[in-house]
Amino acid sequence: MTANAFDFEACFASRAERMQASEIRELLKLLAEPDIISFAGGIPDPALFPGDALAKAFASATGDAGAREQAFQYSPSEGYAPLREWIAGYMTELGAPCEAGNILITNGSQQALDFLGRLFLSPRDTALVMAPTYLGALQAFSAYEPHFDALELQPAANSPAGYRDRAETKGGAVKFAYAVPDFSNPTGVTMTSAERQLLLDTGHELDIPVIEDGAYTALRYDGEPVPSLLAMDVARSGSIEAARTIFCGTFSKTMVPGLRVGWVCAARPLIEKLVLIKQASDLHSASLNQVVMHEVAKDIFDDQLGRIRAAYQERRDAMLAALEAYMPGGVTWHRPEGGMFVWLTLPEGWDAKQLLARSIAEARVAFVPGGAFFADGSGANTARLSFSLADPKMIDEGISRLGKLFSNVAGPGASR
Amino acid sequence: MTANAFDFEACFASRAERMQASEIRELLKLLAEPDIISFAGGIPDPALFPGDALAKAFASATGDAGAREQAFQYSPSEGYAPLREWIAGYMTELGAPCEAGNILITNGSQQALDFLGRLFLSPRDTALVMAPTYLGALQAFSAYEPHFDALELQPAANSPAGYRDRAETKGGAVKFAYAVPDFSNPTGVTMTSAERQLLLDTGHELDIPVIEDGAYTALRYDGEPVPSLLAMDVARSGSIEAARTIFCGTFSKTMVPGLRVGWVCAARPLIEKLVLIKQASDLHSASLNQVVMHEVAKDIFDDQLGRIRAAYQERRDAMLAALEAYMPGGVTWHRPEGGMFVWLTLPEGWDAKQLLARSIAEARVAFVPGGAFFADGSGANTARLSFSLADPKMIDEGISRLGKLFSNVAGPGASR
Repeated sequence: MTANAFDFEACFASRAERMQASEIRELLKLLAEPDIISFAGGIPDPALFPGDALAKAFASATGDAGAREQAFQYSPSEGYAPLREWIAGYMTELGAPCEAGNILITNGSQQALDFLGRLFLSPRDTALVMAPTYLGALQAFSAYEPHFDALELQPAANSPAGYRDRAETKGGAVKFAYAVPDFSNPTGVTMTSAERQLLLDTGHELDIPVIEDGAYTALRYDGEPVPSLLAMDVARSGSIEAARTIFCGTFSKTMVPGLRVGWVCAARPLIEKLVLIKQASDLHSASLNQVVMHEVAKDIFDDQLGRIRAAYQERRDAMLAALEAYMPGGVTWHRPEGGMFVWLTLPEGWDAKQLLARSIAEARVAFVPGGAFFADGSGANTARLSFSLADPKMIDEGISRLGKLFSNVAGPGASR
Repeated sequence: MTANAFDFEACFASRAERMQASEIRELLKLLAEPDIISFAGGIPDPALFPGDALAKAFASATGDAGAREQAFQYSPSEGYAPLREWIAGYMTELGAPCEAGNILITNGSQQALDFLGRLFLSPRDTALVMAPTYLGALQAFSAYEPHFDALELQPAANSPAGYRDRAETKGGAVKFAYAVPDFSNPTGVTMTSAERQLLLDTGHELDIPVIEDGAYTALRYDGEPVPSLLAMDVARSGSIEAARTIFCGTFSKTMVPGLRVGWVCAARPLIEKLVLIKQASDLHSASLNQVVMHEVAKDIFDDQLGRIRAAYQERRDAMLAALEAYMPGGVTWHRPEGGMFVWLTLPEGWDAKQLLARSIAEARVAFVPGGAFFADGSGANTARLSFSLADPKMIDEGISRLGKLFSNVAGPGASR
């Protein structure tokens, strides 16, 4: 800042204090060097993008005057009707019968989280989130100055009265519970059917909405599918109009993230309120992007799913095999049935942030230290590995290097 | 709502009360009938979209694997670097020398207004806005629960101490002043150079940022250009890094609105904070849309401006001529030098909302009653007419019908 610069900060709202650059994100920005093997970003492999189908759809949607008017003009805040209908059909297949009126199109599911934070959270209210949970959800909700309380999935630890009392002590109320039930970011863990029922019970006892982040739901590679929270809620309450669950979906992991097309699926009165937020926030999601996503989804969604599931499953298997082969004793992980992530727990006392610096310098391997995913700042000895972007050979090489580094840290006596 | 439906509203944040559907927007949604002549929507004419250039750019940006990775993958929250550079060059030409680091890409300028409300406004703070002003700005800011105070451009009425005292009485502080200085939505009025200097003086005395909404700035048809608030501020303060003015721009009026590409131009520390908001809000604007907008802007921006200025100028002239020819005495308006709007002041006691209902039923002509643009609910006898969408012949016919209706209201004795 120059000496006589205007001091914007003096005019900031109190919520601006919570808007801080993530140390980790800043560090990971520097990782563009080609010799780094990165397990850091949770991003899809561009080699799996349905590029030909998208290019064809863009050509068609920009091809003549009629198509252009639809593609380039302002469009309704709630979204492009045929896309909303397609998504309603997809959600119906997932066990939540609904109609276009139950769908709002958002800029990826990230925007849905922002809108839901805005709609529900007053300063000092409490949001129940898993520990750890999706960093982007913590960032989206934080703008509305809530407290976070750790959502527990064990009946003994899950006490609605406890959540309520702690929220009141902090000067607000519990406003919602948020979870990523399928192949969670960051842990890769899938909630069991019993855990989902418990979460819905908790929602019922606290009389709060349940936000289901289904970003990875379609990426199951093996194991038995568990019904979504929304589907279970609809089964319990009778219809989507009676359900408390709000499902946030996205095409970012299945198709492409760069077009920013996601959705919210919920009871109509909630969608109608969110449409007003969408209108005030950015009027509507890009018209053309919705037209194209509809065109491509209706033609190739299932084929595309088959393609990416096969590729990511192979990478997951490669990572699990390499971890088994190279990690020293004391390092543990969970076997994910889908998604993009394996979650490492390192021995007590290890600091994953310090290890990342060493790993980049010595092993040329990147990962995300897990602490960033804990609202309370714990989790120093955890790390998130993504298997979505590297091929099986690179995965083997990267985990081998990481295993060597961790073995050196553990000392010569450590073994699995 | 079904009888046993979950009551989301009981969990809403207090700010949700301010999120109400606009009566007028709802009414205007019903106006799709083909025999209606609409002067209502402030939207560009799709016949003027640079469709061929856009289609070509989309084909190129989705043409091969390298292009596709850039177009379809996640991208930086701050925006696509070449587009930010192009915009910095454009802003430099407008008299505000700056660099890519001074630019954040947003989903149209609407999202910029939302972000600025989020950054500056705590509940009970005051935002200074013109009366009337852009309805979308009132909606964006309202989510953050401010009070609005009427920004005055006459030295006698513009009292920084008065603004400050009223804000304190209301339990907060004045956090910014917002204006649409060029061919304002809704009035079409352009602020004089003296009025702009006064606004910057007011910003200085109150030590607050000044938000300049430049949505229509490029659409000047005649008269002498007035430097932008940002350019004047840079001239006064020495550089953009020292300036308090935050310029919000958009390609929606010059190129196409449906791709949702706009920007903020301001001092770097402010842009850096807004990047964090963008990240938490929707990660980034659609990657492909930015690549394409850059490609088209660098090739045809000036030609496109020439084309739309010529077309809209002809329509403005047609509307002014028709108003002169058909309006009864007591109805007055301002001659806009650019933009899309003519603002009517009807005789005291007339109610434009009631007249709209009659106009649709009897004259089959639509306009926007002006009251919606006043934060304090005044302005019942005002109306906004847009000349952007109808051709000169339709404009003449529509204003002729409206003139007859108004003449009937005014009674047989009225004359210009």
